[in-house]
Amino acid sequence: MSHIRSRFHKTAADTVVQYTSSLPFDWRLYRQDIRGSIAHASMLAKQGIISHDEARILEQGLKAIAAEIECGKFDFKPELEDIHMAVEARLLVLVGPVAGKLHTARSRNDQVALDMRLFVKETIQETQTRIRDLQRSLLEQADKNRDVIMPGYTHLQPAQPVLLAHHLLAYFEMLQRDYGRFDDCLKRTDVMPLGSGALAGAAYNLDREFVARELGFSQITANSLDAVSDRDFVIEYLGAASLCMMHLSRLSEELVLWSSAEFGFVEMDDAYATGSSIMPQKKNPDVAELARGKTGRVYGHLLALLTTMKALPLTYNRDLQEDKEALFDTTDTLLASLEVFSGMTRNMQFKPQNMGKSLSLNYILATDLADYLVKKGQSFREAHGIVGRLVSYAISQNRTLGQLSREEYRSFSPLFEDDVYAIDIANSIASRNVYGGTSPEQVARQLELAKEILG
Amino acid sequence: MSHIRSRFHKTAADTVVQYTSSLPFDWRLYRQDIRGSIAHASMLAKQGIISHDEARILEQGLKAIAAEIECGKFDFKPELEDIHMAVEARLLVLVGPVAGKLHTARSRNDQVALDMRLFVKETIQETQTRIRDLQRSLLEQADKNRDVIMPGYTHLQPAQPVLLAHHLLAYFEMLQRDYGRFDDCLKRTDVMPLGSGALAGAAYNLDREFVARELGFSQITANSLDAVSDRDFVIEYLGAASLCMMHLSRLSEELVLWSSAEFGFVEMDDAYATGSSIMPQKKNPDVAELARGKTGRVYGHLLALLTTMKALPLTYNRDLQEDKEALFDTTDTLLASLEVFSGMTRNMQFKPQNMGKSLSLNYILATDLADYLVKKGQSFREAHGIVGRLVSYAISQNRTLGQLSREEYRSFSPLFEDDVYAIDIANSIASRNVYGGTSPEQVARQLELAKEILG
Amino acid sequence: MSHIRSRFHKTAADTVVQYTSSLPFDWRLYRQDIRGSIAHASMLAKQGIISHDEARILEQGLKAIAAEIECGKFDFKPELEDIHMAVEARLLVLVGPVAGKLHTARSRNDQVALDMRLFVKETIQETQTRIRDLQRSLLEQADKNRDVIMPGYTHLQPAQPVLLAHHLLAYFEMLQRDYGRFDDCLKRTDVMPLGSGALAGAAYNLDREFVARELGFSQITANSLDAVSDRDFVIEYLGAASLCMMHLSRLSEELVLWSSAEFGFVEMDDAYATGSSIMPQKKNPDVAELARGKTGRVYGHLLALLTTMKALPLTYNRDLQEDKEALFDTTDTLLASLEVFSGMTRNMQFKPQNMGKSLSLNYILATDLADYLVKKGQSFREAHGIVGRLVSYAISQNRTLGQLSREEYRSFSPLFEDDVYAIDIANSIASRNVYGGTSPEQVARQLELAKEILG
Amino acid sequence: MSHIRSRFHKTAADTVVQYTSSLPFDWRLYRQDIRGSIAHASMLAKQGIISHDEARILEQGLKAIAAEIECGKFDFKPELEDIHMAVEARLLVLVGPVAGKLHTARSRNDQVALDMRLFVKETIQETQTRIRDLQRSLLEQADKNRDVIMPGYTHLQPAQPVLLAHHLLAYFEMLQRDYGRFDDCLKRTDVMPLGSGALAGAAYNLDREFVARELGFSQITANSLDAVSDRDFVIEYLGAASLCMMHLSRLSEELVLWSSAEFGFVEMDDAYATGSSIMPQKKNPDVAELARGKTGRVYGHLLALLTTMKALPLTYNRDLQEDKEALFDTTDTLLASLEVFSGMTRNMQFKPQNMGKSLSLNYILATDLADYLVKKGQSFREAHGIVGRLVSYAISQNRTLGQLSREEYRSFSPLFEDDVYAIDIANSIASRNVYGGTSPEQVARQLELAKEILG
Repeated sequence: MSHIRSRFHKTAADTVVQYTSSLPFDWRLYRQDIRGSIAHASMLAKQGIISHDEARILEQGLKAIAAEIECGKFDFKPELEDIHMAVEARLLVLVGPVAGKLHTARSRNDQVALDMRLFVKETIQETQTRIRDLQRSLLEQADKNRDVIMPGYTHLQPAQPVLLAHHLLAYFEMLQRDYGRFDDCLKRTDVMPLGSGALAGAAYNLDREFVARELGFSQITANSLDAVSDRDFVIEYLGAASLCMMHLSRLSEELVLWSSAEFGFVEMDDAYATGSSIMPQKKNPDVAELARGKTGRVYGHLLALLTTMKALPLTYNRDLQEDKEALFDTTDTLLASLEVFSGMTRNMQFKPQNMGKSLSLNYILATDLADYLVKKGQSFREAHGIVGRLVSYAISQNRTLGQLSREEYRSFSPLFEDDVYAIDIANSIASRNVYGGTSPEQVARQLELAKEILG
Repeated sequence: MSHIRSRFHKTAADTVVQYTSSLPFDWRLYRQDIRGSIAHASMLAKQGIISHDEARILEQGLKAIAAEIECGKFDFKPELEDIHMAVEARLLVLVGPVAGKLHTARSRNDQVALDMRLFVKETIQETQTRIRDLQRSLLEQADKNRDVIMPGYTHLQPAQPVLLAHHLLAYFEMLQRDYGRFDDCLKRTDVMPLGSGALAGAAYNLDREFVARELGFSQITANSLDAVSDRDFVIEYLGAASLCMMHLSRLSEELVLWSSAEFGFVEMDDAYATGSSIMPQKKNPDVAELARGKTGRVYGHLLALLTTMKALPLTYNRDLQEDKEALFDTTDTLLASLEVFSGMTRNMQFKPQNMGKSLSLNYILATDLADYLVKKGQSFREAHGIVGRLVSYAISQNRTLGQLSREEYRSFSPLFEDDVYAIDIANSIASRNVYGGTSPEQVARQLELAKEILG
Repeated sequence: MSHIRSRFHKTAADTVVQYTSSLPFDWRLYRQDIRGSIAHASMLAKQGIISHDEARILEQGLKAIAAEIECGKFDFKPELEDIHMAVEARLLVLVGPVAGKLHTARSRNDQVALDMRLFVKETIQETQTRIRDLQRSLLEQADKNRDVIMPGYTHLQPAQPVLLAHHLLAYFEMLQRDYGRFDDCLKRTDVMPLGSGALAGAAYNLDREFVARELGFSQITANSLDAVSDRDFVIEYLGAASLCMMHLSRLSEELVLWSSAEFGFVEMDDAYATGSSIMPQKKNPDVAELARGKTGRVYGHLLALLTTMKALPLTYNRDLQEDKEALFDTTDTLLASLEVFSGMTRNMQFKPQNMGKSLSLNYILATDLADYLVKKGQSFREAHGIVGRLVSYAISQNRTLGQLSREEYRSFSPLFEDDVYAIDIANSIASRNVYGGTSPEQVARQLELAKEILG
Repeated sequence: MSHIRSRFHKTAADTVVQYTSSLPFDWRLYRQDIRGSIAHASMLAKQGIISHDEARILEQGLKAIAAEIECGKFDFKPELEDIHMAVEARLLVLVGPVAGKLHTARSRNDQVALDMRLFVKETIQETQTRIRDLQRSLLEQADKNRDVIMPGYTHLQPAQPVLLAHHLLAYFEMLQRDYGRFDDCLKRTDVMPLGSGALAGAAYNLDREFVARELGFSQITANSLDAVSDRDFVIEYLGAASLCMMHLSRLSEELVLWSSAEFGFVEMDDAYATGSSIMPQKKNPDVAELARGKTGRVYGHLLALLTTMKALPLTYNRDLQEDKEALFDTTDTLLASLEVFSGMTRNMQFKPQNMGKSLSLNYILATDLADYLVKKGQSFREAHGIVGRLVSYAISQNRTLGQLSREEYRSFSPLFEDDVYAIDIANSIASRNVYGGTSPEQVARQLELAKEILG
């Protein structure tokens, strides 16, 4: 019978052990758990709560356990309940009764809060590294294709011509906001909870700031009741991850669309596409589809933890154990998605010729025509109406705007003159020369800024 | 290079293999996959598309693979992509080139749809079995405690006395609806999709009804495009599971509440409670808390798959691969929760004495007093007002209703007579003798009906 | 001060009145509330609890109130709390103190449960009517375009040719499942809760079956505690609505895609498209986009109510008030979406010529080529590999399969003979002649079955 | 026919107008819309794109419209589509054709992005003001009750004694994190999008920085495609609101629990409680329950918008219109909840006597007993085991720890001496004197820090 059940008359039922054990997943926290324990032991010695010799023995034992786990020699039996008890039980075997002193002035409640914060801090760092790499890949493609013009869309209808580089930089921006959100999440994660005890604080003369310094935290928690029941930092990570996956899902949608035979704007590298078990001709953009699908999974984890936390009284309740799998799977999903997207986007081939075909569809220069009239003195609303009727006329004639005669133009407005034929894709692009616009000058400027950000 | 990549010039990148392989989780479908393949081979032979000898060889090979997997001797390498390819690749090794005939007139698209439907059908059956067992446990407790009276609550305030058996039967009702929902879900799951091919139907003379009979399906799908892209049945399972977990979360909440020192209505058996690593006196209702927490997880899976399916064009898209982990984890969570709840509720001890203490709080018979006045001719609204003022007076005097004198009563209404003192808990309960009410007669009737349902 | 606050010393704070009043939205239940009250009064008289004269007066008063509300003359003051109190307060004014008898043997807890069930029953009926109308519209289009061939897609890549009618019937199937789910939801909604009182059942000799008959319910609730706290039927409606919106979102996605200049498969009628405030040429499929967007909203309502119900102890808690807006908005959204989709789909124009262009892309007959080899004796896996290499070769030559010479074919497999050139779109379609397949014969059969369903 | 439909041959169908019009809800943006238009007109004049006279006329017209709306004289006809068109149409009536110039160099796409950002910025400010007020109310209660001791709970079991002030400050901390999250959200909201045009940037010489300064923005957007399709800032607000509501739901849960007859730790003021329509004695904590319930609604809005944004291709799609109701309802819900909670918490009465009763339950000083042994040299693990057995013995004897004799103590460990009887609630509290702990000294320190924050 587990030594923490000393007031009980029975062991836990097998189904209960299975149901409540977190070891099948929280073993992933072993590095954080052991780092935290070493810092705790070191502080206990510094404060004279245990001897320096005891601290040394505990540290050696803990490091030995870490080594055992790293090389796969550690037996994670579910009945050990969780990573904390698993480590402690092994420590008892390795170093004897002094192991029992490690839990002085500490509870699993503040211990798991510490482990989770250490894990999220590391995860944020890795997430940001991968965001930067995906930004770099997009930037490379933008730079490489800086002269390529494509149709810009609203409502999936060709709207106005834009530079492909401008389009790719839109995703750079989204990822830049994601990066910032993870920074903000870090601020609230980087707070050291140990010393909060089970709930009320520890009844020993601890040096919490010392532990924080040892573990690289910049602050310590200010309220023990809150510290053991706070999972805001996990939810914030899930929230930032959800937004980041949402951005990837938008990029995925476009890559799937652009890979279609009808659009044909891009071709995935063979290494980033898959075939069909039945249709020999198929080349499918599965990676993008799967990332799009995985967006649901990350949203699901966010909802799951928000729901779990709803209406929980203070302080620790076993419901909180549900924070881990949601976090681990989100981390795994987001990191893998970012990594595979870097490779996929870096290796894809754009097909400017097909973009050109789409540019000729749907009267994409109509707004430029309206702007032309405005610059000749018409109000925008009237100009919009005139061009609308003109487009309607051209459609009925099955002709492009360039194919209309000067007389036809003038039958819609006397302001049209010969220079109307000078309106073309290139000067349409060039004319959007406002900060943030798609003109080559502005896009070049943003490319420079992006390079500075990536350093 | 996988044989389905014959038009490609490169193998998939390692990150792509890792990212897209479903084998780490869809190996769980191996029984369904092999059953489906045997039925398919058998039908191909019956229709003369392959020979009976070939069918026999395929069947033997498939059974050998099942046996290898059962005894842990099968090597699930991620690069095999999924359970379908893993089985097929092994089959090639075991039986030679004839293995290549198994995929005739079949695509992974209709194959996985079949596997998933077989899995959900089995899962529904197991879920219903466990619902029945939890209902049985609740019924046993209700039967055993049929004379125990407890306060009924609204807004967590004592409202009117009720029988504990009546309260437990409320959960019986919820589970009864859950049972019905799984029945309904089964109707739409029990439809055989094989023969839909990749999307357009198979170009062979198949006998789909034969396959359906072999596999125990009552219908076959009517539209191949729909059949390969439909995951409604998975979402319906997740929806029914969400409602069922919601019911368990309500029961959990009450058990946690009732286990508190302040309520003290119930005590978990030692085998269903856990201790604290720091507080030696603690006995915590962790199982109930954890089930309450896991509700979020199941909701999360429901949302995840709904999100994944949103706005997917027909037919199969790789996003659909995300249906599996959501389903598997929901199944595992729900089945384990139902099982552990059966044991936990069967073994818990109610404490009628503490319920009695709560019954004496908060003027729980006030409604009976109002009904008393109504039966003497007052309108209910006026009676409600009179008793409200009377309660307010009693609170200010710090006295119970039974401690008020006849004169005090009559100062609020001349309708009060000596028989007002006859109002007590027992006849309050007895008076709610309408169908569905808490009177012993009605509760006995419902206990009988419940026993009939459980058979 | 409200008459139900007789034990209080203060009125509610203004912010509390604003915060807790449900009248700004639950006024929508007035018809259900009044119908229920009339049935209740009628039963009270039948059972001798009030006189027949009183019942008549109550009924007349209630009908007068209904009339006032219908013609906009009723003043819904938030401080009246909810529709039940608003009606009761007005009844007092109209018919005097006898109004106070209406609440005999009834609580707002069972009253609101009744109103909600009446509302959901009506909503289900209306939802089903509109589903049928959308099915009819799809069927008309399928019938009208029964000879049109389009590319069938997987992964948004042209996969195999299919009939447009077959594609439209896939949505018919989805809607058919939706219809069935609403039927199932109805079963659990069609249960009459009145007589459950506040929580424990009523202390009067009621005839609950009579009330059920009067109101058209087929069953009565069996447990009063469950009856006043059960909102499963609302969640089930939201769940079925979520699936239905998911289906509409898939259709929306396709219509948006098909409306793109690049696909050009369909054109929305001008009455179902919108323009741009800046780009005069734009014709946007806004209705489809908006429906796709509204899917999120309905999912949100489902999760909102699931979250609200999580871990609520029995019986009524004020949290339950949150069921209404989620239901009302879901109802409004789903009904409006179904209605506008009927009109939009009925009036859209398909463009078979553009579908034809897409059919010529991407080697859409490759599977037929593999099937050709299988029918000459090759195993499917080998045939798949041969055709894969052949497609790869054709791509490298920038030629279609039809443009390859007999020698080229035979260099990949000696099984190729001259009849390989007979493989074309039409016989590819015709060959998928299995039940549920896309052959004209099978589609005709499904069209007949669909017509029978619509009656 | 709307002037933006000049290329169409038909007006929109009535159902389409109803379905697509956002005016029934986006009229709420009228102040932001008009402020933005005035700044835009002013900039157009500054840049010489329109004349200063025209700008003055436009500004006067816009101000007149604002005044009309403020006093309820504006007719919001749904067929006007949205607030932008409604204002523009009215402007045309008021100032004539010059109104048509206002839309120069602007699209509804960048206009609505601006309006939404202005709205969210204001909402964040108001949210933060109300968070501060609730923090102030909690701090007042903590200060007023600084000597009150209550049981601290884990798993809803009495765990260790804590100060009530410490418990209340835990919520102060949560709200402090919420405050910070809204700050962070503000950073990414405070970016001015006008000048992005429909998607590609404007083809005019604009001064975007000028508009930003006029409207109080600190930055301008850097990519026009991103700017018109970015709703991250709305989702971030919904995310921060979800966490804040989660915190309120936890406080609600505790207040409902503490209001129960069994706990009796707090009594709501009559002005913040409600009665029952049937049970005259009831005093229900409805405000707390309703806030707990509304948590689901806010979560639902978060998920709704995340779902809506999933997989949307760039740039503007009509799906984005769904951002508004989710935001407005979240804002209304959160602001109202914070406000009513300030009043409710400020006016509630704690009942220290009942907390005292709970302190005497469940051997709450057991951890102190274990710490006692540790300080005498035992390892914590052994001490925990000894006290566990001692508690088990006391329970079996139905006695408190203080009622055990010295001999009984020593039969469990010879380290127990007479000073064991000195362990009491007060010095248990005092001993948790670590930073963040519950000792009076530490709590006093946190009260000071909290006062500094509130200023």
